[in-house]
Amino acid sequence: MDQKPFLHTVLSPRLLDIYDITNSIVVVIDVFRATSTIATALYNGAARVIPVDSVDKCIEIGKTTGGITAGERDGKVIPGLAYGNSPAEYPRSFIEGKTLVLTTTNGTRLLHMALNCGASEVVTGSFPNLSAVCDYLAAQKKNVILGCSAWKDRFNLEDALFAGAVIQQIQDHFTIHCDSSLMALDMYELHKKDMFSFIRRTTHWHRLASYGLESDLEYCVTPDAANILPFYKDGDLVL
Amino acid sequence: MDQKPFLHTVLSPRLLDIYDITNSIVVVIDVFRATSTIATALYNGAARVIPVDSVDKCIEIGKTTGGITAGERDGKVIPGLAYGNSPAEYPRSFIEGKTLVLTTTNGTRLLHMALNCGASEVVTGSFPNLSAVCDYLAAQKKNVILGCSAWKDRFNLEDALFAGAVIQQIQDHFTIHCDSSLMALDMYELHKKDMFSFIRRTTHWHRLASYGLESDLEYCVTPDAANILPFYKDGDLVL
Repeated sequence: MDQKPFLHTVLSPRLLDIYDITNSIVVVIDVFRATSTIATALYNGAARVIPVDSVDKCIEIGKTTGGITAGERDGKVIPGLAYGNSPAEYPRSFIEGKTLVLTTTNGTRLLHMALNCGASEVVTGSFPNLSAVCDYLAAQKKNVILGCSAWKDRFNLEDALFAGAVIQQIQDHFTIHCDSSLMALDMYELHKKDMFSFIRRTTHWHRLASYGLESDLEYCVTPDAANILPFYKDGDLVL
Repeated sequence: MDQKPFLHTVLSPRLLDIYDITNSIVVVIDVFRATSTIATALYNGAARVIPVDSVDKCIEIGKTTGGITAGERDGKVIPGLAYGNSPAEYPRSFIEGKTLVLTTTNGTRLLHMALNCGASEVVTGSFPNLSAVCDYLAAQKKNVILGCSAWKDRFNLEDALFAGAVIQQIQDHFTIHCDSSLMALDMYELHKKDMFSFIRRTTHWHRLASYGLESDLEYCVTPDAANILPFYKDGDLVL
């Protein structure tokens, strides 16, 4: 029998370069909320999402592309930008056919790092597109890195839970010698039935819920609400 | 009521400098096997343990101190050194009153980093000295960093399990806004009753057990078998 491809989970962008990611598919995970919003906008017909790591770039690229500029700080739309980071702001009636220029910090940095480290493909994942991620990875028969965006390089639970959800579905297709993956799987299996209450214990919840984003955060851990697969190509996230 | 001190868990040496560790007690954790062997040697009366990160340094310091040189590679004593890394090699009848110069990679590096980052105190912990670590931390009323040595910067389960065991005992004394700590606590509570079987799933187990070290590894997750607290002072680990 052929050796199965490897799967590793990387718990912080700081740890990415420890792993050989050449010839690997990297799944960038930023559950609260970048990769949840990206999946939702594309599911609802956005032509593309351009992730950027600064407000200045967002404004500049918004002008050159005619795209919708989006970004938040402390739960409010950043001055100079038009919309926020909530997936709920991007229904089909609004976003279809348009370009979304999305300011994120943790997720965008990991997208760039993954390409710079030589990943063969970079896709994004969160609970709203869980099955699309799993179906794709299971079919490709290539090495996989589940890359958690974390928060300012600190481990976070919600990204690990998503890694665990993916591993639960596709583990039979991979060789997994990776304590991070074993942990993610255990944490997901421990909490999959109380996800809404468990996420209220996370650090990120306390950071965001104070801005009244509870329903956003619950949406971000709801499987398959926007079940498409964003690919990162030439700086754009597209289907 | 006064604010309780903070407790954070750091999952890899690579992530240490994200945290402000000045005025903090750092607990260096390297369950398989450095901090288990350190606790055991000191419990059994060693005058001190000098942790070093290379074989050359080990030989040199062994000569200048008259200490016992120790280090393993691939489960065998490294040529030029006298003993291995197993806690079982250091009973009282052998080690009492002596200096042990111990070659380790992951643990020693984190000890040095913790001092260089300005920790106010550095101690070492593993299951054999679990209660001594907990009693000390609970009494000090200072911020705490539980620092996992990991393996070549990769997250490992056994160090996280020890962090979780500490947190379970002392959490009421601390403010804990730290997803790494929540995860460590969950993992410990999930596996504390099947520790011997669970550690057989870890990556490190597969690395070491092939050298016949099963009983060593089981000892390393046995609470309070060598219940003293090593302090890192001027390059030495002492009581």
